[in-house]
Amino acid sequence: MTSAGHPDPHVTVRIVTTGGTIDKFYSARGEMEIDEPAVVELLAIGNNAVDVVVESVVAKDSLDFDDADRARILEAVRTAPERCILITHGTDTLTETGALLDAADLGGRTVVLTGAMQPAAMKESDAAFNLGAGLMAAQLAPAGVWIAMNGRVLPARDAIKDRSVGRFVLNPEH
Amino acid sequence: MTSAGHPDPHVTVRIVTTGGTIDKFYSARGEMEIDEPAVVELLAIGNNAVDVVVESVVAKDSLDFDDADRARILEAVRTAPERCILITHGTDTLTETGALLDAADLGGRTVVLTGAMQPAAMKESDAAFNLGAGLMAAQLAPAGVWIAMNGRVLPARDAIKDRSVGRFVLNPEH
Amino acid sequence: MTSAGHPDPHVTVRIVTTGGTIDKFYSARGEMEIDEPAVVELLAIGNNAVDVVVESVVAKDSLDFDDADRARILEAVRTAPERCILITHGTDTLTETGALLDAADLGGRTVVLTGAMQPAAMKESDAAFNLGAGLMAAQLAPAGVWIAMNGRVLPARDAIKDRSVGRFVLNPEH
Amino acid sequence: MTSAGHPDPHVTVRIVTTGGTIDKFYSARGEMEIDEPAVVELLAIGNNAVDVVVESVVAKDSLDFDDADRARILEAVRTAPERCILITHGTDTLTETGALLDAADLGGRTVVLTGAMQPAAMKESDAAFNLGAGLMAAQLAPAGVWIAMNGRVLPARDAIKDRSVGRFVLNPEH
Repeated sequence: MTSAGHPDPHVTVRIVTTGGTIDKFYSARGEMEIDEPAVVELLAIGNNAVDVVVESVVAKDSLDFDDADRARILEAVRTAPERCILITHGTDTLTETGALLDAADLGGRTVVLTGAMQPAAMKESDAAFNLGAGLMAAQLAPAGVWIAMNGRVLPARDAIKDRSVGRFVLNPEH
Repeated sequence: MTSAGHPDPHVTVRIVTTGGTIDKFYSARGEMEIDEPAVVELLAIGNNAVDVVVESVVAKDSLDFDDADRARILEAVRTAPERCILITHGTDTLTETGALLDAADLGGRTVVLTGAMQPAAMKESDAAFNLGAGLMAAQLAPAGVWIAMNGRVLPARDAIKDRSVGRFVLNPEH
Repeated sequence: MTSAGHPDPHVTVRIVTTGGTIDKFYSARGEMEIDEPAVVELLAIGNNAVDVVVESVVAKDSLDFDDADRARILEAVRTAPERCILITHGTDTLTETGALLDAADLGGRTVVLTGAMQPAAMKESDAAFNLGAGLMAAQLAPAGVWIAMNGRVLPARDAIKDRSVGRFVLNPEH
Repeated sequence: MTSAGHPDPHVTVRIVTTGGTIDKFYSARGEMEIDEPAVVELLAIGNNAVDVVVESVVAKDSLDFDDADRARILEAVRTAPERCILITHGTDTLTETGALLDAADLGGRTVVLTGAMQPAAMKESDAAFNLGAGLMAAQLAPAGVWIAMNGRVLPARDAIKDRSVGRFVLNPEH
C-alpha cells in the first residue's frame, strides 16, 4: 500500500516459484512431476495486468526440500528489489518455509505464500483462485509473512495445515 | 481489516451477484444466457474457507441494467449486515454501478466489484482468478468502492474499461 | 474398410470444417462467434495418429447457410482425393446438408457428419467425444452418408434432430 | 453391424472398466490414484445416447494386474449378454490383455480396448476422444479384438505401444 494506506496501481510483484503441487503434470512415466511454473499460463488466462517478475528458485515437491532449498528462497526474498513478494510453494511444508521467513529480517517486505491442493493442470483446481487471492494479498497486506489459501490470508506464524480437511487454519494452540 | 490494520480471519463476506459474463452458459438455443451464479461452484473448486453469504440481486447482462436494477444493488449493499461486500457484475457497465455506489453513504463498508471477460463455463476463463482477487480485496482494501480486475484493485471512481485491451485501467484524464 | 472388411490403418481422412457450434468462442463483443476450426486442437489433445487433411470450406452458424454454402460442401466432398470424409457442421441444419449429400453421387465415399451441442471452448463439451466417434465412423462405416452424434452413427437420410432432448434420433416416420 | 453390414442403432454396448490412467485422480496424499470409472461422466458430457451397461471389473494401474485380474476381464467378456464390448484399460499392459482375449473364443463378439495417456481429470486429456472412438469401433468393427487409440483401430494381435511417442502402432515385426 502507499503511504496513504491505499493500494498502489503501479506496483511490481516478484513471484518466486518453488515447485509443489500447483506445478505438477502427469508425465509419460505415469507419475506427477514438477513442470514449468504454472503461474505464467494462469496469469495469462486471468488476464493479469499487474507487473510481475517470475523467478523460479526451486522446482521440487516441498516434502523434498532441504535446508539449502529454503536458504535459496530466503535469499531470493531478501535480495528482491520489490517490496511485494508472492511465493508459490508445495502445501506440505509451506508453514515451515513461512516460519523461516517470519524469523528473518525481510526489510519491511510483504511476503505471501500460496499454492494449490490440486495441480493447475487438473480440470478442477484451486490454483487460479489461490493465485488471484495471493497476488492481491501481496499488494494489500501489511509488511510481514502471510499464507494466502482458501480465500483467506493468515499470518504465517499462526497458520497450520489441517490435513483432515485439506485447508490452512489458525493454529488453535496459539 | 481489524483496527490493528491486520486482516480478520473471522470475517463474513457478502457476495452480491448480478449476472454478467461470469454467469453465462451456452443454451440449447445457441445463445449465451445468464445462469445461476457461478461463484458457488468457483468457491467450491477454490476450496474456499471464508464465510460467505451469496445473494442474487439481479441476473442480467449489465448492458441491460436499468435504474431499478442499480437501485437494488445499492440497497443490497446498504442493508447488508456485513462490512465486506463483493459484487460480481458484467464488465460493460461495471464502472457505472461503481460510480453510483461511490457517491452513496455505504457506512464505512469495503465494496469490491469484480467480474469476468470470459464466462466461468469456458475452458479458459479469468473468473476464478478474479474471484480470488476480489474476495481478498474485499477483506483487505480500505473502506470505499473498488474494482478488482486483472489482478489489480482500482478505486471505482478512477477506473475505466479500456475496450481496446479488455482491461480495467486508471482513467488517464483523472 | 479394406476389401477384406477390415479397417485400413493407412487411411487418410479429409476433415471438412464448416463452422457451427463446435467452432464458437466468446468474443470481446460478448457474442459467440465462429473461430478457427476446433478440430486442430482437439486432434492434438486427443493424440490423434490418423493422417488427416483439414479443409475449412465455410465458417458459419449452420442456420445462416445458403445454397451456395451447401454447394461448396458438396463440391469439397466430390473432389476430395480421399475415400473417407468427416464433416464438422452446425447441428441445426446438419440433416439438410446430409440430405443434399445423400442425394448426390459421392463416388462410393464414406461421408460422416458430426458437430457439437456445446462449443469445444466450453469446460464441458461433447466436441472431443463426437470427434473421436466421427473420425472412427469415417474409417469404419460403409459407403454412404452418416451422422455421428451422441455416440451413435445414423444414416443421414433417416436421422432428425430431436430438439426436445438435443439429440439426433431415427426419424420415427420412416 | 447388422447382417446387412450396417450399424445397428438399437445396440447395447457393455463397457468393462479396469482402472488405468483414464480413471486416475490426484489424491489428498499427493499421488495419482484410481477413482470411480471416468466413463460415466465422460458419456454424460458427450451427450451419449447409446445404451450402455458399465461394469467395473478391476480398478488398478495395469502394471499391477496379475493373472487373476486378466482372468476376470476375460470372464466378463465371455459371459456378457452383449455382442459389442468396450474395455477401458491402462495403456502399459493393454496389449497383453488384448493378446489374452485374442487367443480366446469370444463367441463372435467385437471387443475394443481403449484408455488414455492423460487422466480424464486433466484439463487436456485424450480420454473423451478415445472413448468416442472406442464406443464407435465397438459398434462398427468386425468380430475380433481391437485396440482403439489415437483415432485408429488396430487388431490387438498386431499392435504395440510405441513408448517413444506414446502411441499405439502396428508391430513392425509382423
